[in-house]
Amino acid sequence: MALSLKFTTSMLLKSSRNLRCIIKSIERASFSTSSALARKERDTMGELEVADDRLYGSQTLRSVMNFPIGGIEERMPIQVVIAMGILKKAAAKVNMEFGLDQKIAEAIMTACDDVISGKLYKEGHFPLVIWQTGSGTQTNMNTNEVVANYAIKALGGTLGSKKPVHPNDHVNKSQSSNDTYPAAMHIAVAMALRDRLMPGLTALRDTLEAKSKEFEKIIKIGRTHLMDAVPLTLGQEFSGYATQLTYGIERVCATLPRLHYLALGGTAVGTGLNTRIGFAEKCAAEIASITGIPFETAPNKFEALAAHDAMVEVSGALNVIAVSLMKIVNDIRLLASGPRCGLGELMLPENEPGSSIMPGKVNPTQCEALTMIAAQVMGNHVAVTVGGSNGHFELNVFKPMMVANVLRSIILIGDGCLAFNKGCAVGIKANQEKIDKIMHESLMLVTALNPHIGYDKAAQIAKTAHKEGGTLKGTAVKLGILTEEQFDKWVRPENMLGPK
Amino acid sequence: MALSLKFTTSMLLKSSRNLRCIIKSIERASFSTSSALARKERDTMGELEVADDRLYGSQTLRSVMNFPIGGIEERMPIQVVIAMGILKKAAAKVNMEFGLDQKIAEAIMTACDDVISGKLYKEGHFPLVIWQTGSGTQTNMNTNEVVANYAIKALGGTLGSKKPVHPNDHVNKSQSSNDTYPAAMHIAVAMALRDRLMPGLTALRDTLEAKSKEFEKIIKIGRTHLMDAVPLTLGQEFSGYATQLTYGIERVCATLPRLHYLALGGTAVGTGLNTRIGFAEKCAAEIASITGIPFETAPNKFEALAAHDAMVEVSGALNVIAVSLMKIVNDIRLLASGPRCGLGELMLPENEPGSSIMPGKVNPTQCEALTMIAAQVMGNHVAVTVGGSNGHFELNVFKPMMVANVLRSIILIGDGCLAFNKGCAVGIKANQEKIDKIMHESLMLVTALNPHIGYDKAAQIAKTAHKEGGTLKGTAVKLGILTEEQFDKWVRPENMLGPK
Amino acid sequence: MALSLKFTTSMLLKSSRNLRCIIKSIERASFSTSSALARKERDTMGELEVADDRLYGSQTLRSVMNFPIGGIEERMPIQVVIAMGILKKAAAKVNMEFGLDQKIAEAIMTACDDVISGKLYKEGHFPLVIWQTGSGTQTNMNTNEVVANYAIKALGGTLGSKKPVHPNDHVNKSQSSNDTYPAAMHIAVAMALRDRLMPGLTALRDTLEAKSKEFEKIIKIGRTHLMDAVPLTLGQEFSGYATQLTYGIERVCATLPRLHYLALGGTAVGTGLNTRIGFAEKCAAEIASITGIPFETAPNKFEALAAHDAMVEVSGALNVIAVSLMKIVNDIRLLASGPRCGLGELMLPENEPGSSIMPGKVNPTQCEALTMIAAQVMGNHVAVTVGGSNGHFELNVFKPMMVANVLRSIILIGDGCLAFNKGCAVGIKANQEKIDKIMHESLMLVTALNPHIGYDKAAQIAKTAHKEGGTLKGTAVKLGILTEEQFDKWVRPENMLGPK
Amino acid sequence: MALSLKFTTSMLLKSSRNLRCIIKSIERASFSTSSALARKERDTMGELEVADDRLYGSQTLRSVMNFPIGGIEERMPIQVVIAMGILKKAAAKVNMEFGLDQKIAEAIMTACDDVISGKLYKEGHFPLVIWQTGSGTQTNMNTNEVVANYAIKALGGTLGSKKPVHPNDHVNKSQSSNDTYPAAMHIAVAMALRDRLMPGLTALRDTLEAKSKEFEKIIKIGRTHLMDAVPLTLGQEFSGYATQLTYGIERVCATLPRLHYLALGGTAVGTGLNTRIGFAEKCAAEIASITGIPFETAPNKFEALAAHDAMVEVSGALNVIAVSLMKIVNDIRLLASGPRCGLGELMLPENEPGSSIMPGKVNPTQCEALTMIAAQVMGNHVAVTVGGSNGHFELNVFKPMMVANVLRSIILIGDGCLAFNKGCAVGIKANQEKIDKIMHESLMLVTALNPHIGYDKAAQIAKTAHKEGGTLKGTAVKLGILTEEQFDKWVRPENMLGPK
Repeated sequence: MALSLKFTTSMLLKSSRNLRCIIKSIERASFSTSSALARKERDTMGELEVADDRLYGSQTLRSVMNFPIGGIEERMPIQVVIAMGILKKAAAKVNMEFGLDQKIAEAIMTACDDVISGKLYKEGHFPLVIWQTGSGTQTNMNTNEVVANYAIKALGGTLGSKKPVHPNDHVNKSQSSNDTYPAAMHIAVAMALRDRLMPGLTALRDTLEAKSKEFEKIIKIGRTHLMDAVPLTLGQEFSGYATQLTYGIERVCATLPRLHYLALGGTAVGTGLNTRIGFAEKCAAEIASITGIPFETAPNKFEALAAHDAMVEVSGALNVIAVSLMKIVNDIRLLASGPRCGLGELMLPENEPGSSIMPGKVNPTQCEALTMIAAQVMGNHVAVTVGGSNGHFELNVFKPMMVANVLRSIILIGDGCLAFNKGCAVGIKANQEKIDKIMHESLMLVTALNPHIGYDKAAQIAKTAHKEGGTLKGTAVKLGILTEEQFDKWVRPENMLGPK
Repeated sequence: MALSLKFTTSMLLKSSRNLRCIIKSIERASFSTSSALARKERDTMGELEVADDRLYGSQTLRSVMNFPIGGIEERMPIQVVIAMGILKKAAAKVNMEFGLDQKIAEAIMTACDDVISGKLYKEGHFPLVIWQTGSGTQTNMNTNEVVANYAIKALGGTLGSKKPVHPNDHVNKSQSSNDTYPAAMHIAVAMALRDRLMPGLTALRDTLEAKSKEFEKIIKIGRTHLMDAVPLTLGQEFSGYATQLTYGIERVCATLPRLHYLALGGTAVGTGLNTRIGFAEKCAAEIASITGIPFETAPNKFEALAAHDAMVEVSGALNVIAVSLMKIVNDIRLLASGPRCGLGELMLPENEPGSSIMPGKVNPTQCEALTMIAAQVMGNHVAVTVGGSNGHFELNVFKPMMVANVLRSIILIGDGCLAFNKGCAVGIKANQEKIDKIMHESLMLVTALNPHIGYDKAAQIAKTAHKEGGTLKGTAVKLGILTEEQFDKWVRPENMLGPK
Repeated sequence: MALSLKFTTSMLLKSSRNLRCIIKSIERASFSTSSALARKERDTMGELEVADDRLYGSQTLRSVMNFPIGGIEERMPIQVVIAMGILKKAAAKVNMEFGLDQKIAEAIMTACDDVISGKLYKEGHFPLVIWQTGSGTQTNMNTNEVVANYAIKALGGTLGSKKPVHPNDHVNKSQSSNDTYPAAMHIAVAMALRDRLMPGLTALRDTLEAKSKEFEKIIKIGRTHLMDAVPLTLGQEFSGYATQLTYGIERVCATLPRLHYLALGGTAVGTGLNTRIGFAEKCAAEIASITGIPFETAPNKFEALAAHDAMVEVSGALNVIAVSLMKIVNDIRLLASGPRCGLGELMLPENEPGSSIMPGKVNPTQCEALTMIAAQVMGNHVAVTVGGSNGHFELNVFKPMMVANVLRSIILIGDGCLAFNKGCAVGIKANQEKIDKIMHESLMLVTALNPHIGYDKAAQIAKTAHKEGGTLKGTAVKLGILTEEQFDKWVRPENMLGPK
Repeated sequence: MALSLKFTTSMLLKSSRNLRCIIKSIERASFSTSSALARKERDTMGELEVADDRLYGSQTLRSVMNFPIGGIEERMPIQVVIAMGILKKAAAKVNMEFGLDQKIAEAIMTACDDVISGKLYKEGHFPLVIWQTGSGTQTNMNTNEVVANYAIKALGGTLGSKKPVHPNDHVNKSQSSNDTYPAAMHIAVAMALRDRLMPGLTALRDTLEAKSKEFEKIIKIGRTHLMDAVPLTLGQEFSGYATQLTYGIERVCATLPRLHYLALGGTAVGTGLNTRIGFAEKCAAEIASITGIPFETAPNKFEALAAHDAMVEVSGALNVIAVSLMKIVNDIRLLASGPRCGLGELMLPENEPGSSIMPGKVNPTQCEALTMIAAQVMGNHVAVTVGGSNGHFELNVFKPMMVANVLRSIILIGDGCLAFNKGCAVGIKANQEKIDKIMHESLMLVTALNPHIGYDKAAQIAKTAHKEGGTLKGTAVKLGILTEEQFDKWVRPENMLGPK
């Protein structure tokens, strides 16, 4: 193919392979293997050497070797790993009820606590990226291996010996990647919604509501089609924004019933093979107790493994919130445009110099970060949608990608709203003088005359005033349609703010 | 620009302007003006001639002239026009309570009945396309004009005279395009969800549930990662599909609270200027009564005009259903692949010859139509998302596009599910012989041995059997891990279908 | 499921089945069967009755019966049918060279002329919808049947007898749906790009370029981050818009090499079974000659049947154009916002009354239609993307959906640009007085001082002027940084329009 | 709002604020401030303390403080920072030609070398995230500050003193964020296409082409609509895949002309204010020389700042590649499904244990990672599209989000293809025995009879054989349509692989 050849020759003439290597090495820095001594770890495929200060085993290592894709930013999200820890802890406890050796169970549970606290993630024991097997199997095994080795160590065993704690037979007991990973997806997302989305979203909503009250006396021009329309209060305008976010919260809540279903107990294909009657329900109850979220065992485990419609649904709610934020924030920056050549109705806090060339320029940078986030969330939603639609038979294998996108959307909206709230929303001020001046120039105050003189005559006044550059009152009187008194009585912005 | 020039010269050398004209004339056939005599209609911009057998007036005609975009397939959906009819009827009734002349109000209501029945749409009185003003103002005016002229005619007046029924002052009384069109969007979508989506979706769900029962004794191989896994029943597999759609119905229901809010009463910018206290609530109640759907007046009218998050939300629920359908239907056609060289576990009804060159070929065409629909719905959802995010200030002006996409998604899913249900789902048969044969060949039955011999030994058996092409039992015995009796006792597919 | 039950009971209490039937009957009006006598048509599945005034046969009818999905707006686009006509004509001619009876070949070619002219589509002989088999097989067979019956009639045979012209053996000779339909997709899209997209796109580009010249002396404030920035000319601003569209044209052109590849000659799976060496090349040459577009036979037929990446690629170029249009048109309506309370730098033509409640209001409705179109095109692109990614093995079966979306995007952009160009762009006027007034108020003119006094001092002037509401000059002098003369010499907007 | 209250009460009962803090602290670990002594840095907004071992200044720090959004995975991509380094170096050199003090220029250039090498990024001097101002201003300033302080240090000055090297007046000389950041976007993306996308994409393409040759003699069943069709060779099937990627490479190349345009020289709004005639061209030439990529100065700088259509275009090409990969890889894993209960035509390398519960299971994990990547790229494309469409006036402010998504798509495809190539593609083996067995069972070999006995009779044979479970030959003879000899002569798979 000529074109492609041209590309590779002309473009690669000055090879920057060097640069590429540099970038890759930097990206992967955090995965750097330690200089510690190595031990042997084996799985059903054979033996591998693992650095002695790492708790993971051969299956984790194989995935690291098989998938050198992207850098540290492509790691399996910590939220998923924490959820895995919670789930393994719950399973150990329930397994103990079903006969698992207490010493082993307790060692597992203690190990899980250091997964849940994030300590083991932070220390580099969870090196896998999103781009691994689509079932998340290696992340489940990563957890099994780390927990097993941690417990082995605590019990005085030899790392990698699988004794007395076996990653599959004990840590993964009554479980499969196919039900643990989806359960972890639901746990991670439900927790992130509560702990990461809601604080930001409600804070911003509350601020907008407060602003709505603060601005309730400020009458301003309304704009429809971007054109001058009839007046409303700035408070009314902000009440619309607050309502959008309140509904957004409701939308998220509306998805929770299906998000709170856990796949755990379905094992390999949803049947629950090799698990015990009651295991699923007990685990869900235990996880609910640990997290404070009302998780239940999924009524249908086949759906819970083979599809991730609940992820698509949550993502859809986040998508609506992104849409709302894009609208709200766009309005705010347009209203604050200026300071002299824009609409200038609002004044935003000045947080940082806005230009490297234009001295003294200040920009609505918080608005920009949040609208960029909104666009990102819309994109993430499509990725989740595509992944959700591509399952085959008993298992959807787009799991890590799906949960990573939903979590990212949650984090970006949550953190973005917090930053926007603090750095912009709470400090929004109305430019009352400008608002007032603009409003009184509007020709659309003529609408107040409809009930008195009819649409057609009112239109005649407005159009004449527009053409001649005159005021409404002057034109109305000149055209002989109204007296000055009638105009003053009927056209009063403060009377145009509601039904009668 | 060189490239573009090359395009226009080389490509337009043989101009096919002729062809283009032909296509356009065909597309627009349904809008063809009649040969009837013309009357004058005027609006605030001046006078236009309208064919005497058309009930619309100058504002409608201006929009026809301004937006020659696409053909008949781009018409404003009939559902929106019917919703407009319902809304205008309700408003006339309520306006009568607030003092509108009874004769006029009743004439308006009678006219509305012929809008609601679809008669006037069918006869060509609603010629506008989606691609008009983004507020739907001209479709509101189209309705106002048609209803006014219809009423004028009934009351013995002259068409186009606006007497005794004025399109703005009477038909549009206490209303604005800005609150009627969004209200019509909600009415149209809520009705379509009930009347067009649900019949198809529930029919298909019910069939899948019935199949789940029908197939409950058929044990088959499970497949995860497309690879052989442990068994489940075909009924269990179908129960997952049925559950997906049941949740889909729940998802749609979860969006209804916000869809049932009506903007009517907000008039131009949400304040309710020029309307009466109580008008909004009474109209909503009246519309609820006409439609049987529990509509309420929107608690915040500013949100209801400026944003259409409720459309994005409904679209999101449809998007999840599309995802579910893509998954389910893909599975079905894969399971039915063959007849001889595929999986061949299912047999689908034969509806039509499948190939113009391969004699006797029969294809899963219903699956194909439905998966194409799923892809379309995902695309529609993005269009709705983009439109929803682009509002400015007091009015979102992507309204017709948004509602058209949501309605199209509803119609396609509803009709598509009905067709698929009738032409495929109800006739699905299991190929029991093939299912049984395949299942018994699977190496993954070895999983049943985990609790007895541990994961590692079980893996050894499976891997050896795979490598040597042997059976599990033979290999297990040969490796000295199990006796034949143990194998027969422990590895029984019928015991692998649930927890113990 | 509680929720779903509640839905079906509460919602369906007052069944509006009636309404649904009305809507469906209206939607399907155009497919209404005639009252003509019926003849028997048979295919490999049996016999069906077809109205005697319809030229299609049993395979078409089966598809009509199997897929009652949507109304007339869901028809297979006429562009595809015309492309089928072109292709069948070319194939007949080439088949004649390879031995097809001349009388039959010529009868086929004559029939094709009435497909190409659109006559037979218009008369209702192509009743199928997009939502049929994903290969478009029934549309290929529809064409085969119509052409065969038309030719049979011309040769004095009996409709439906398949003699002397057989739909498969003669009209479809050396072809399969699997190569004809993809070829028709490419033909239809390439023609539509030339005949429907380019006229609108180039017209608008040319207008924007002309405006760029017209406005080249008008100096205005620049806006970055929506905030006041340094000046530029209105002509420069419009030159950016024109450039975007020029690049858009180049982008479309860049996709043509792959669009001009035709699958014809690949038959059922890409091998070319049952066709003749040279058939593919001759057909492509013939089609190129008929259309004036440099089509070639696809170098790899397997790709051409199994994937429609070329559609995704073209759709991607249309997506960029949609992005450009959204940006340009948004700018234009923002610059024209007002007339009194917005930016008011531009004045757009007044085409229609803008409000049913606010008299005299005029809105940028052309902008709104075009931005709605942009959103639709972005959505269509996702549908095409999803469809393109879902092919299996030798055949992608999302063909009709994909081509329908690409064609719709083309038509909407093409027609939308034409309408926007005529109804808005050519009539755009600059509000020179307003532009001038605003520009001189900007504090960002201070940037011109950077090379003279440095960024930090310039910032000090701007910030002080902003805080105190003063002018730049006054503040600069007051702060003792500059003399009045220096300011007047250095800060001149007309000197800020380019490098030095 | 009831629902939201319920959420906040029931859900937040057991607050996990603790956990949230843990996660945040881990995420932000890499940004941890050092314990070094602090110096004062000031900008136009005032003074801030910066740790003495960091080279950035107050503007960078403000952005860090203003945007605590996400963790380390949200960092500004290193590729952008490197591109900034390249660009600053080029600008310094050109500025020297235009009179910048040589000592200063050289110090800047030396500092840039350590930006380009990645050293300074790695050491933590570039702490900003994507979610900052939408112009990337702070990343430009981050570069200016780091380079200035580095140079100051080298020249013996005091960090933060801005002497003798000023971040704005010297490092940013003749530049603005508004032209440097877009230029850096183009540089970063062009380099990443060459250095990160192409190596993986071409390697995979080459492997698929090699496999196409390797498999050229293996005749297998074709499948259309997932149903048995006529045969082709496995080599032909793979040739389709290879062609898809070859076209993918062409598609990327087709976007390069517009990607190679650099905004540099446009400064604040595109006019080039405060820069010098020739600066733009010289810089582009210098950057071309440093990178080996034929960059040119953008013919229209207004477009280059205000729109990023070139990003959307490149993203569109990547989207097509994602579509291709999804198709190819889906095919491969379906063909390799089994080992015993699937199609089993291909055998993929075994890289890692596939199940934590099913012993011995091996999964197509490389396929899964790559299809997840494909879905991600489709989502990224939508984010880029939305961002691209939302620019206002002279500046698009979705820049960091857009470039981050394009870069991520490039990296994921590039790395993913490399991993897939190495871990799967090169090791694909054909299961010749299985392929052969399946193929001979297909009824679609009947197609070879069309030219001899016509479509209808051929269909009769196939349908009868299907119904009766017989062979084609037996049925044909039994039906008296053919002799055994005729069948053997005409139905030969090896003769069905091309036209005659």
